[in-house]
Amino acid sequence: MSYASPTDPFPPDFRHSLAALVRLRRDVRHFRPDPVPEAILEEALNLAHLAPSVGFSQPWRFVLVEDAAKRAAVAASFERANAAALMATAEEDRALYARLKLEGLRDAPVQMAVFCDDATRTGRKLGARTMPETRAYSTVCAIHTLWLALRAHGVGMGWVSILEPEEVARICEAPEGWRFIAWLCIGWPREARSETPELEHLGWEQRRPLTELCRRL
Amino acid sequence: MSYASPTDPFPPDFRHSLAALVRLRRDVRHFRPDPVPEAILEEALNLAHLAPSVGFSQPWRFVLVEDAAKRAAVAASFERANAAALMATAEEDRALYARLKLEGLRDAPVQMAVFCDDATRTGRKLGARTMPETRAYSTVCAIHTLWLALRAHGVGMGWVSILEPEEVARICEAPEGWRFIAWLCIGWPREARSETPELEHLGWEQRRPLTELCRRL
Repeated sequence: MSYASPTDPFPPDFRHSLAALVRLRRDVRHFRPDPVPEAILEEALNLAHLAPSVGFSQPWRFVLVEDAAKRAAVAASFERANAAALMATAEEDRALYARLKLEGLRDAPVQMAVFCDDATRTGRKLGARTMPETRAYSTVCAIHTLWLALRAHGVGMGWVSILEPEEVARICEAPEGWRFIAWLCIGWPREARSETPELEHLGWEQRRPLTELCRRL
Repeated sequence: MSYASPTDPFPPDFRHSLAALVRLRRDVRHFRPDPVPEAILEEALNLAHLAPSVGFSQPWRFVLVEDAAKRAAVAASFERANAAALMATAEEDRALYARLKLEGLRDAPVQMAVFCDDATRTGRKLGARTMPETRAYSTVCAIHTLWLALRAHGVGMGWVSILEPEEVARICEAPEGWRFIAWLCIGWPREARSETPELEHLGWEQRRPLTELCRRL
């Protein structure tokens, strides 16, 4: 089957590599301490900034956190949220939950909070009146672009969400109107490349068949 | 500068093409009527299904809508939401707003609603206790993967958010617990390839300098 199209500038080789990138992306929680070159981070952030955004509102705000005390405060927020999550987890799942390593907050050389500026005037609210949450969704598109761009360099990223959002916003001195979206741990992965999510490998959850998740009307 | 890394399987050529894909993605609102081969759509959905998800919850639910009456009902929802948006827009922006074509609901050969199953048991809530909205964010990662995978084939996608979410959920017969995330218009783009968003080209908004959106702490 040929996919040729007059508007298609991307050859099959590229598409195969893109699929490999998506298959190998991973949420990384084990990092080597080696620094990530600034040029890679900058290139990836520049690509993330080209992500789609509702009304071209570009609501993503990146806060690179280098300060050790602030990083420790975020790690403490994780410890509290994770202890509560463990207790809320069904008893039969708790032993496995407790063995999972769910973040690289102590290891990742680069750490970044990402916020969505819900109060931005950029884009003049186009497309975001009935669904203001689309600004957060645009921010997620930027995060996902960053993830792929970094992984294309071999750099791993992990998205930490077991946190107290208001506490992280406070630690990051986020202005009013900024919504906390993600804490990102970035660095060279310790793990061998794998197409299997760590949570699947460790028996927490399995990949569902796509057909279960699709309908036709 | 060399980016070589022992874990990096992606050569510079691929990274340049990936950057080109991100630069050329576009939110497409003008479609040719030619059908999109099922094989392309299926390949793109299979990649989307490999997107990151909180706790491996895979909360994305894709509803391909082919029924003409349902499509017309969604277009009517757009007309209502867009008329209200026009009136809510600042007076000095209204003439320009009224000239913008913000969707391809009448033209796109493939149309799909995407929902997030907030009630899913898959992933056993891991990572989503303090931030349940991360399930919606995972769904957005799948949508963004779909977007890039389609564009790599030359197929365009447009994300319509000027809609009444509850009405679209009703039209799509969404089960309770499903949150409406996006309406996607998919097809071969009429526009020439461009690195400039249509909203920028038509004078609605400009690209902000990335430096304005980044901080260091």
